[in-house]
Amino acid sequence: MSPTAARITAVDTYDIRFPTSRELDGSDAMNPDPDYSAAYVVLRTDDADLPEGHGFTFTIGRGNDVQVAAIDALRGHVIGRSVDELCADPGSLGRDLIGDSQLRWLGPEKGVMHMAIGAVLNAVWDLAAKRARKPLWRLLADADPEWLVGQVDFRYITDALTPQEALDLLRRGKEGAEQRRATLLERGFPAYTTSPGWLGYDDEKLTRLAAEAVTAGFRQIKLKVGADLDDDLRRCRVARSVVGPGIRIAIDANQRWNVDEAIAWTNALGEFQPYWIEEPTSPDDVLGHAAVRKAVTPVKVATGEHVQNRIVFKQLLQAGAIDVLQIDAARVGGVNENLAILLLAAKFGVPVCPHAGGVGLCELVQHLSMFDFVALSGTTDDRVIEYVDHLHDHFVDPVVIRDGHYTAPSSPGFSATMRPESIAEFTYPGGTFWAADLAQQSRTDRKGAAA
Amino acid sequence: MSPTAARITAVDTYDIRFPTSRELDGSDAMNPDPDYSAAYVVLRTDDADLPEGHGFTFTIGRGNDVQVAAIDALRGHVIGRSVDELCADPGSLGRDLIGDSQLRWLGPEKGVMHMAIGAVLNAVWDLAAKRARKPLWRLLADADPEWLVGQVDFRYITDALTPQEALDLLRRGKEGAEQRRATLLERGFPAYTTSPGWLGYDDEKLTRLAAEAVTAGFRQIKLKVGADLDDDLRRCRVARSVVGPGIRIAIDANQRWNVDEAIAWTNALGEFQPYWIEEPTSPDDVLGHAAVRKAVTPVKVATGEHVQNRIVFKQLLQAGAIDVLQIDAARVGGVNENLAILLLAAKFGVPVCPHAGGVGLCELVQHLSMFDFVALSGTTDDRVIEYVDHLHDHFVDPVVIRDGHYTAPSSPGFSATMRPESIAEFTYPGGTFWAADLAQQSRTDRKGAAA
Repeated sequence: MSPTAARITAVDTYDIRFPTSRELDGSDAMNPDPDYSAAYVVLRTDDADLPEGHGFTFTIGRGNDVQVAAIDALRGHVIGRSVDELCADPGSLGRDLIGDSQLRWLGPEKGVMHMAIGAVLNAVWDLAAKRARKPLWRLLADADPEWLVGQVDFRYITDALTPQEALDLLRRGKEGAEQRRATLLERGFPAYTTSPGWLGYDDEKLTRLAAEAVTAGFRQIKLKVGADLDDDLRRCRVARSVVGPGIRIAIDANQRWNVDEAIAWTNALGEFQPYWIEEPTSPDDVLGHAAVRKAVTPVKVATGEHVQNRIVFKQLLQAGAIDVLQIDAARVGGVNENLAILLLAAKFGVPVCPHAGGVGLCELVQHLSMFDFVALSGTTDDRVIEYVDHLHDHFVDPVVIRDGHYTAPSSPGFSATMRPESIAEFTYPGGTFWAADLAQQSRTDRKGAAA
Repeated sequence: MSPTAARITAVDTYDIRFPTSRELDGSDAMNPDPDYSAAYVVLRTDDADLPEGHGFTFTIGRGNDVQVAAIDALRGHVIGRSVDELCADPGSLGRDLIGDSQLRWLGPEKGVMHMAIGAVLNAVWDLAAKRARKPLWRLLADADPEWLVGQVDFRYITDALTPQEALDLLRRGKEGAEQRRATLLERGFPAYTTSPGWLGYDDEKLTRLAAEAVTAGFRQIKLKVGADLDDDLRRCRVARSVVGPGIRIAIDANQRWNVDEAIAWTNALGEFQPYWIEEPTSPDDVLGHAAVRKAVTPVKVATGEHVQNRIVFKQLLQAGAIDVLQIDAARVGGVNENLAILLLAAKFGVPVCPHAGGVGLCELVQHLSMFDFVALSGTTDDRVIEYVDHLHDHFVDPVVIRDGHYTAPSSPGFSATMRPESIAEFTYPGGTFWAADLAQQSRTDRKGAAA
């Protein structure tokens, strides 16, 4: 890769929404009608021969405009930056964005503003990987341990993980990495599927999709629970009878319960041998998760898709509150912060099983697990990436699932680039789909008023 | 108060910014140049005889527009609501706003979206108190315990506080309330002042302001620390020599440290007998605060101005992580959630010493402490409200400090109403102050380019 004097000239944002609520795809006990959406960002440069950097925050509909406004508020930190300097050290932009003292007041390091930072940083990592002509997992796995440690912000986590410990973990991760890379390229990374288990699906659809999942090679499925105990008992019975005893069934309450409810409900479903209970209560409740874990053994406790940053993950590990750590590629402060979280998990010996689904989350997060396998944890034992078969065709480099495994991406970048025609169709409210939909709605409203 | 058929017809928002950074007012180790700002909201009705409801989120400059966008995103939940129903049960709007499943994804219950919800709910409480022709503290202190408990969202906190326990606390709070109300009206509520201690002030200014604070009747002052240990040692020495041994000196690190630094730095300042160390580390770090507290005794640990919600406060109390709980009136989900937090503090017997300052925070939070004294904790022992002498003249009903005490407000409402001429002057970027300032800046830029 030859050096360039190019600079970032534009941080373009798009409010992209897919009307997924109409099919009850993605319905669970807390989210009855999500419209999977992306606050999408493109970094453009003044050199037409260079790639663009793409990134996004995933949301579920309303508020996607607020998320776009938050990304817009970061523009001043990015415009004018040297492409080479950005790609050589994304961590320095991370520290600038998180360290903007005025914007920091809106978090710090949580919610809308932090997710916006994550979108921008992920776009920088996409650009860096494209410039290096490597898929992101490979860029990370090939990187020097010293450089990777330099990308991590250790503020507020040194009581659990020092830079030296991180360096030691990454150096140990280099041992056998070549062999594991070959294994990854041949076999892929194990996936589990949530497609059968949405709360809005009837038993017939659950039965059919659960059987298809086993046939397709998945060794784990997941069911949404938490709205009604009788329904959950019936659906768990149906699922277990379809998949048999050898397939893991995870259950997911999406934060529906208080601590005592979580314990009682999980234990009530115990006869169906759930593998883990996911998000039993508030993602903010470290001590609550620890109490649940103690009371529902042998069912494992999993959480993370809504955990706001490395500081809360640190405490979940320190308190022994989780058996399974679920990173999300687009909620925390980008690849930089996920590196910190993967390192914390490795230090505590807790397996990472990423949250995915939505729109584009599978595309992103596979890179992080593959890096983790090749160059950090060194194993896929008890590690699976969530898979949901929605909306992949909107991406230029969509995930490829083969025999229940994610195939390692080979195209340069972070697999974040959405197809231009999808952007044109689903931009809200001006894209072709929404313009037609809103016009139709307005005609219906007028007819209703006239009747 | 006669019933009305009026409904909410508008949720008007304003991006208001004050150029406080130019005087280094408010400078601390994490916030070198805040421009105190408000994402301000006014609820209007279709009855010109009714009052308006005013509320706001406090920010420190950049990003205030993102906060305004977040309030705008809530509009659909508020427009068309019956004024009487809203005022009779603000908690039901709280549950609707927090329960919007699509917006919830952007938190949940934290950061930009949650602060926006707080601004709207506080505006409803302002409207309710104005309708009842009572200052808010009095509305709360006079209210039936059953009704107050109905305003609280107990989700995720029942493992620490049940509705029945809350009811018992409020019923006990009624005993002697009349006498305490008389005391409050006569004496006010104790304040402490942060005005002497901003990091950007030199020793001469610190000396003068500390002496003035004692003369003005304050029994506690606060110094910002955490940027440079030698400076902190010198400034603590200066302050202690000015105020003598009988005045409490609190120190405030504004989240500057990791856990181990917090312990070492606080102990290094121990010779000056700091009363509390405030925000020693990340506001998300419950276990970190617990570790700091254990290691810095007898210095007390205080935090809360950046604590995102009742769930984190619950854990700070459960873990024995704090000696002093610092609520903020405009960060969590409004009066409703602060009721939950005051109840948790009362249950655990931890004194509440609110964060204030900024713009309008003193005006708001005094009401919550006064309610706490009259009808919940029943004492002002070891309880003080922060006071900073900035920007009060922009409010219609500014705080009145007398002999180091907040005087109880008597005007109906939540003291949130900003003067119309201040809004016209400091709206960003179109208000008269900013329009002139930006024009001046543009002239300077042109001259610089021509030179």
